[in-house]
Amino acid sequence: MPTNPLQTIMNPESIVYLGGSNSMLTMGTAQLINIVKGGYKGKIYPIHRKEKTVLGLTAYPDITSMDKPADLAVIVIPGKAIPGVLEECGKTGIRHAIIITAGYGEIGKKGKLLQQELIAIAQKYDIRFLGPNCIGIVNSAIGLNTTWFPSKYRAGHVGIISQSGSYVTQTLTYFEKLGMGISQAISVGNQADIDMVDCLAYLGEDAQTRSIALYIEGIKRPMAFLKTARKIIPQKAIIALYVGGTEAGARACSSHTGSMAGPNELYNGFFHQAGILRARNVTDLFDWSLALAQQPLPKGKNIAILTNSGGPGSSMADEANHCGLKIPLFSQDIQNKIKAITPFTAAYVNPVDITMNYDLELLYKKLPELILNLQTIDGLLFYGIFGTIHFQDKIALASDLSDIPLDLMEQMMEKACNEFIKLPEKFKKPILCACFSGREDNAVARIQDGGIPVYPTPGRAVRAMAALWEYKKIKEAIEKGQTALSEFESKKLLASYQVPITREILVKDGESLLKAAHQISYPVVLKACSPDIAHKTEKGLIRVDIRNDDEAKVAFNEIVVGMNGNEKTVLVQEMIKGKRELVAGLTRDSQFGPCVMFGLGGIFTEILKDISFRVSPLEKRDALEMMHEIKGHKILDSIRGMKAAELNILADILIALGKIGLENENIKEIDINPLILSAGKPVAVDALVVLET
Amino acid sequence: MPTNPLQTIMNPESIVYLGGSNSMLTMGTAQLINIVKGGYKGKIYPIHRKEKTVLGLTAYPDITSMDKPADLAVIVIPGKAIPGVLEECGKTGIRHAIIITAGYGEIGKKGKLLQQELIAIAQKYDIRFLGPNCIGIVNSAIGLNTTWFPSKYRAGHVGIISQSGSYVTQTLTYFEKLGMGISQAISVGNQADIDMVDCLAYLGEDAQTRSIALYIEGIKRPMAFLKTARKIIPQKAIIALYVGGTEAGARACSSHTGSMAGPNELYNGFFHQAGILRARNVTDLFDWSLALAQQPLPKGKNIAILTNSGGPGSSMADEANHCGLKIPLFSQDIQNKIKAITPFTAAYVNPVDITMNYDLELLYKKLPELILNLQTIDGLLFYGIFGTIHFQDKIALASDLSDIPLDLMEQMMEKACNEFIKLPEKFKKPILCACFSGREDNAVARIQDGGIPVYPTPGRAVRAMAALWEYKKIKEAIEKGQTALSEFESKKLLASYQVPITREILVKDGESLLKAAHQISYPVVLKACSPDIAHKTEKGLIRVDIRNDDEAKVAFNEIVVGMNGNEKTVLVQEMIKGKRELVAGLTRDSQFGPCVMFGLGGIFTEILKDISFRVSPLEKRDALEMMHEIKGHKILDSIRGMKAAELNILADILIALGKIGLENENIKEIDINPLILSAGKPVAVDALVVLET
Repeated sequence: MPTNPLQTIMNPESIVYLGGSNSMLTMGTAQLINIVKGGYKGKIYPIHRKEKTVLGLTAYPDITSMDKPADLAVIVIPGKAIPGVLEECGKTGIRHAIIITAGYGEIGKKGKLLQQELIAIAQKYDIRFLGPNCIGIVNSAIGLNTTWFPSKYRAGHVGIISQSGSYVTQTLTYFEKLGMGISQAISVGNQADIDMVDCLAYLGEDAQTRSIALYIEGIKRPMAFLKTARKIIPQKAIIALYVGGTEAGARACSSHTGSMAGPNELYNGFFHQAGILRARNVTDLFDWSLALAQQPLPKGKNIAILTNSGGPGSSMADEANHCGLKIPLFSQDIQNKIKAITPFTAAYVNPVDITMNYDLELLYKKLPELILNLQTIDGLLFYGIFGTIHFQDKIALASDLSDIPLDLMEQMMEKACNEFIKLPEKFKKPILCACFSGREDNAVARIQDGGIPVYPTPGRAVRAMAALWEYKKIKEAIEKGQTALSEFESKKLLASYQVPITREILVKDGESLLKAAHQISYPVVLKACSPDIAHKTEKGLIRVDIRNDDEAKVAFNEIVVGMNGNEKTVLVQEMIKGKRELVAGLTRDSQFGPCVMFGLGGIFTEILKDISFRVSPLEKRDALEMMHEIKGHKILDSIRGMKAAELNILADILIALGKIGLENENIKEIDINPLILSAGKPVAVDALVVLET
Repeated sequence: MPTNPLQTIMNPESIVYLGGSNSMLTMGTAQLINIVKGGYKGKIYPIHRKEKTVLGLTAYPDITSMDKPADLAVIVIPGKAIPGVLEECGKTGIRHAIIITAGYGEIGKKGKLLQQELIAIAQKYDIRFLGPNCIGIVNSAIGLNTTWFPSKYRAGHVGIISQSGSYVTQTLTYFEKLGMGISQAISVGNQADIDMVDCLAYLGEDAQTRSIALYIEGIKRPMAFLKTARKIIPQKAIIALYVGGTEAGARACSSHTGSMAGPNELYNGFFHQAGILRARNVTDLFDWSLALAQQPLPKGKNIAILTNSGGPGSSMADEANHCGLKIPLFSQDIQNKIKAITPFTAAYVNPVDITMNYDLELLYKKLPELILNLQTIDGLLFYGIFGTIHFQDKIALASDLSDIPLDLMEQMMEKACNEFIKLPEKFKKPILCACFSGREDNAVARIQDGGIPVYPTPGRAVRAMAALWEYKKIKEAIEKGQTALSEFESKKLLASYQVPITREILVKDGESLLKAAHQISYPVVLKACSPDIAHKTEKGLIRVDIRNDDEAKVAFNEIVVGMNGNEKTVLVQEMIKGKRELVAGLTRDSQFGPCVMFGLGGIFTEILKDISFRVSPLEKRDALEMMHEIKGHKILDSIRGMKAAELNILADILIALGKIGLENENIKEIDINPLILSAGKPVAVDALVVLET
């Protein structure tokens, strides 16, 4: 797999910069200042036709006059000069660029032609570039900010990919107020070359990035996007804001970065399919990304609310119910425990409301620990942060009257906060807080800096908690999700490619069981059938050679009892008699793609490993050769009075398997085992199709 | 009507304060500091058993030792001492109190009894009080803040009534960040005496209050609440956050201020009925209140978006579509006009996106004026605020490199903002802005201070705009709403009180018309029938003496054509022949209540004004006297071969009218005109019931 070009673009060791000058009022200079002064430690080479130095750095008159190629060119010059510059990059060996300049695909036909020109030059020289019409990138790990907004961001774990530059620049102050740190942020602009999918793949691999926020106006390569997202979701959450789904939204987008927007509902389905959380607005996008980057996931949806003020507690409870969380009543026992340590005015049913009390020990430690320790509680919503800054305010107001021991209070508060922020890690449960004050409140700042999100309203904390739970469900679904087809489904697929399979019927109760058995006619085989059940034989979930209704009923009941937890579905199958068991299958190799396997089946597969392989697609000759290649190939001959195997049918099966592999990218493996020779004719008696996840 | 007790509670000339000391760490002292230092100019009398002075003010050992009664007692002392203090208030002539102390109705049975005790004492001495279990009040007009949160609020036009103290205290810093000023804020606590309805009525009358934000956990007097709200809505918007509607919400509330919460859907209907905007969360509650307090209402839902960044513009367009606003395409002509003055990279269809341009003249003046001047546009959503603070940041970052002429830029920005903030008033159209920076951005602060809300995200600005439009629709519906019953409905009501009316059938098409005419039998009268249509005769919407189907069809079509804009409903009525036309009616006098009127009807009502009145309820004698009282009473006798009027029936009609008035508070006026004597028997031929609004 080729290296992702963003590796270099996001982590350049040297940058050549086109468009900066010594006039602070141009956009280009503003961006260069951020690179020069933002903490970036690499080399910076400004290009300027006249000036000897730019912002104190030695300037070069053009790219060709540089000694050696820089890792990255950042281009902010007027559009008409860009093709020439790109040519120079190509000739001097610069292979990565960010093109900030606008006026391309987004402005219509003429712009599209100019964009084609850039693409052609880039392809000629193997240059990979972001943009045009983008705002640049931020990589907090190396202090690199190529955007024009001052570098007032904090390093953290939210990665951002945006089709709007504003969401990685103007929002930086917004993030700061939320106490939200970012890992890397990428403005993709017109995606003439590098697109969202590349960025997604890159951030998926980035260790600093723990959640990924997307601002989307339209997706160019939906299938690749889907595949990339699915690969990332089990490790980190992806949250998307899509705005092209309404008529005016689409109109706004098409004149913006030239995206083709699809209907809202389509994207709903698409995001769902990918496992992406869809945010309805900017607020949710970043609120959720923050929580998902910083907090453990709740194991269930049972959340406790702890507050020292009724209104915000009630607001939390109300919102929790609206967004699918549960605020379960505490047991009488727990209620008594809480009652014993709280003031008489407190409520202790959940929400726990200690009513205007600021006992730091109680609020930040005793109660959260008691609550988070409960098996029945999966997370905590907290309202009750109140820093000593408010006492400072009081002193400022009444300095002539003050006798507040502020130092002591600050020490106590610091201690309380420091213990509080350890709780999510200690209990492996999420805490999200709300406070109407922001970071001007020193306790809010302390708690945010300690990794627990503090949101400006109760409702926003609750919706973020719901997002954690939503992601947890998605993860779970993927983890225990359908990674394989059931035997029944697997054989349906094989049959559709003309692979001979056993006659079989799926049944769920005694009545349909007997009906199916009669239809197939005794003797039959009964098998537990569920994609979640592997190793049926070992688990005693197969009964063979069943001769009559009574035997069938007994077998059915035994199998059903053994399938605890799974859907009670049983496969009634014709009994194939044949002593020669073969195996045929498909595996997907990272280099060769789908490969077909043939060999001795049944218990001999593991023991003898007598198998042969071919890369798909197979010609008939390949298939026949495979059969001859195995050591035990004599099994296919007419032996011991058994008919010779019908090699043509066997060959067709192997060719079909290769075809399935080529035509179904989502299939990772196929295992037909045993493939029994019944009077010389092969029949797939058991089969398993494993899916890509 | 008795004076609202909140007049004094919110505007006391003197306050006696119980619960303050010289220890800054008690809640009571914190609250007293706010009163002493918050700008309040009235007299403050702290009560303290031991101290001679409290916070520098002369203290009194108890209430009885004061020279004269204060307007208001603020009580923060422990509950057990309060009955005694209330008794002292009563005896010394203090008639208003705020009881902050908790531990009453909200904690269960024992607390309820204590609360009853307070109520009993208050009733004995005619004391009106807020609370208990409340946090106090803020009146920005007189600098009075009896809560414990520092007085960092700004004076403005949002009034707040809250069942949670936090929403009028801890939110003050939240408001400040939004640039939202408040007029008066009231924490109602347990509403043992003064309740939400009283507060609503008070803020409804307050000139400073232009919108009212409610935080509701349950409503005690729903009908009074409804009536009070309805009276206020035509003048100012009411926005409510109700959190008791879900199971956990209700549980949280009941342990909080002891509210009885009702189901969510019930409150939906209730708020709708009252004309109250329902906010789903705290964010919307205050966002909407701010916009409704400060911006003119849009005349329609056609909104323009002006931005200098695509992403936020697209987000606005997307959200607008989701919340029922329209972002109409500009006409080609307008597009050309915009294109002519914007950069080539700009979009000009609506949204107008001038793409990363900060031409102040263009962004703050030329484009908004061009857009707001359009007949087809009802309001403006704006993204593009960028104060010089960001250049200051740049200078701070690169102080060694700077050559930015900050003074000049600040002047230009100030000028641009000053013109921008005048636009809503100039064009009578709302402007709402979004900016990811807050008040730390000097342009954001300037624009907020100039009265135009600036929200932290694009979506929030759009939802606030939708709230303006929602309120506009509510207002309109009230203004042109059903202020009267249709003739058909009016007569149904009269008939239910045994008033004789014409036989009549409502029809909507030709087929039912003929069927109705045959049922009533020719000759018939056809009348347009809609509560919105007054003066039917003048508008030619009545046809009398129709003899056959052909005439009926012609008359029907003519009437329907004349009813443009209204529902096409026509009344088919028996033709009452009779030359003597009377009038009978009901009017509601502010002093006397429902009064019954009788006199000469038809055209003579206006000309001769020969009428008599009686206050309801009427005895038969009253009714008979009324008839004799009019100058033209001889019309009732047997004249010109016509039968004498049946006075008993007439008397019953007048008595019935009085009864209707007494039994239906929502009926403001009834007008039966003409009441025709047909062979001596009175029949209500036309009638109008006017409703209270």
